Amino acid sequence: MVWNSGWRLASAASNSGILGLIGAGSMYPEVLREHIQKCKQATNKPFGVNVPMLYPNIQEIMDIIVEEGVKIVFTSAGNPKTWTTWLQERGITVVHVVSSVKFALKAQEAGVDAIVAEGFEAGGHNGRDETTTLTLIPMVKEHIHIPLIAAGGIATGKAMLATMILGADGVQIGSRFVASEESSAHEAFKKMVVDAKEGDTQLTLKELAPVRLLKNEFFNQVQELYKTGPTTEQLKNLLGRARAKKGMFEGDLVEGELEIGQISGLIHDIKPVSKIVEDILSEYESAKKQHLF
Amino acid sequence: MVWNSGWRLASAASNSGILGLIGAGSMYPEVLREHIQKCKQATNKPFGVNVPMLYPNIQEIMDIIVEEGVKIVFTSAGNPKTWTTWLQERGITVVHVVSSVKFALKAQEAGVDAIVAEGFEAGGHNGRDETTTLTLIPMVKEHIHIPLIAAGGIATGKAMLATMILGADGVQIGSRFVASEESSAHEAFKKMVVDAKEGDTQLTLKELAPVRLLKNEFFNQVQELYKTGPTTEQLKNLLGRARAKKGMFEGDLVEGELEIGQISGLIHDIKPVSKIVEDILSEYESAKKQHLF
Repeated sequence: MVWNSGWRLASAASNSGILGLIGAGSMYPEVLREHIQKCKQATNKPFGVNVPMLYPNIQEIMDIIVEEGVKIVFTSAGNPKTWTTWLQERGITVVHVVSSVKFALKAQEAGVDAIVAEGFEAGGHNGRDETTTLTLIPMVKEHIHIPLIAAGGIATGKAMLATMILGADGVQIGSRFVASEESSAHEAFKKMVVDAKEGDTQLTLKELAPVRLLKNEFFNQVQELYKTGPTTEQLKNLLGRARAKKGMFEGDLVEGELEIGQISGLIHDIKPVSKIVEDILSEYESAKKQHLF
Repeated sequence: MVWNSGWRLASAASNSGILGLIGAGSMYPEVLREHIQKCKQATNKPFGVNVPMLYPNIQEIMDIIVEEGVKIVFTSAGNPKTWTTWLQERGITVVHVVSSVKFALKAQEAGVDAIVAEGFEAGGHNGRDETTTLTLIPMVKEHIHIPLIAAGGIATGKAMLATMILGADGVQIGSRFVASEESSAHEAFKKMVVDAKEGDTQLTLKELAPVRLLKNEFFNQVQELYKTGPTTEQLKNLLGRARAKKGMFEGDLVEGELEIGQISGLIHDIKPVSKIVEDILSEYESAKKQHLF
């Protein structure tokens, strides 16, 4: 949710009764501080920060989170052992995002409070095992005893109910909120998400870090390069820097990196966060009633 | 389900109250006739035949199906227009297997009676869009009005309920029945399926026909070849002929092609078909009671 989930989206989510997350992945430390402060002004409800741990200035980011009194951190892209205890000692609940049973077990062993298990269909960066949400959730559930949050492919109340039947205690929803009024994504990107159809995303750049994105001109360039049997260095050079910002935040649909999940094919409108949450919860309740008999 | 689903598995499934399918994909025409005849002797219940339409002797196979009075055919790997009307005119119900919304619409247009939508996590041959069951089912459901059967990643009653909540009218189960007493798979392959863990399968050979298989020595050879930027011809040469038979039927776990779904990581025992069906249905019912109130 880099470039999508700033204070507006996070506070709108929290004000709608779910847990909003600020995506720190696209923010310099002082930008993150500003978003946290604005989020606190915009909501009295709890919210969290998602921190990919591979950033060089990670200590600074964690210090800001503590200083600003954030109580929930979702960590990803790194070893959960590194920060879990440090955060918990400062009164922070730690949730770690994984894509496999192996990493779920490592996270549990590191003492995290809950796990997000994210399937292959999810947008953005993803795991190497390519395990889908439908199969990942029951397999992770079988091996861990701490709370389990399902992610990847969930944009509706029916999918929420389905993944909870598979063993999840709750769900994390990304793509659906990209196409919200409060998302900080560029309008052109939001519109492309709404227009996306089944088959319009693909997981690529597996030699760097696997990432699911919309098949645009940049994606085609990656595919062309693959035909030449490229080195990792050549792939890195093509990717370059700031492509995600260029695509999702600045709206360059041609040269930008447009991260979104497979479920974008089921997202047809841009709505306020409060309406998205209301619709998901009401579909969840009616799906329960419909399938009872 | 090539090399797994002969008359023993199909008749055991039908005798357990579900629809058994003979997998014609691995059978010469006269072998198929023998399996159909034995299946008729072993059960009074309806059963079907799954026919990949890419075979050269397809006319002969279809003639045998009609001559032997089979009433249900599942077609795959080909254009549904070619055989649907011909089969229906002979009193046969036609179900077509697809992996995308686009192909689901083509199948509906061709007049098939129902559609199987099979996700990326499924074992064996698979689609190019890599759409997972969790996202494929609601997207296909949105576009078609004929009955929809979910496949890929379903081995339990919970997954059956989950996919039906997503919009499926029923489910097709493969991998779970590979690890059944009545499957014609080699015991060594069944044992490898039971021992498989999350992450042990991968979709590969996408340039030929994408296929999900267990990561064994043959898979490693494919991966090594990929590093050299191989031509399609080189991939074909490595694959050679009869690798699926060698692996799944003859039990060569080193050089064979071992087709199975991601959900193999959740399959821990070899059971009689009747027990598998009983367990799935009882879990389905109890999951309903637990979640839907």
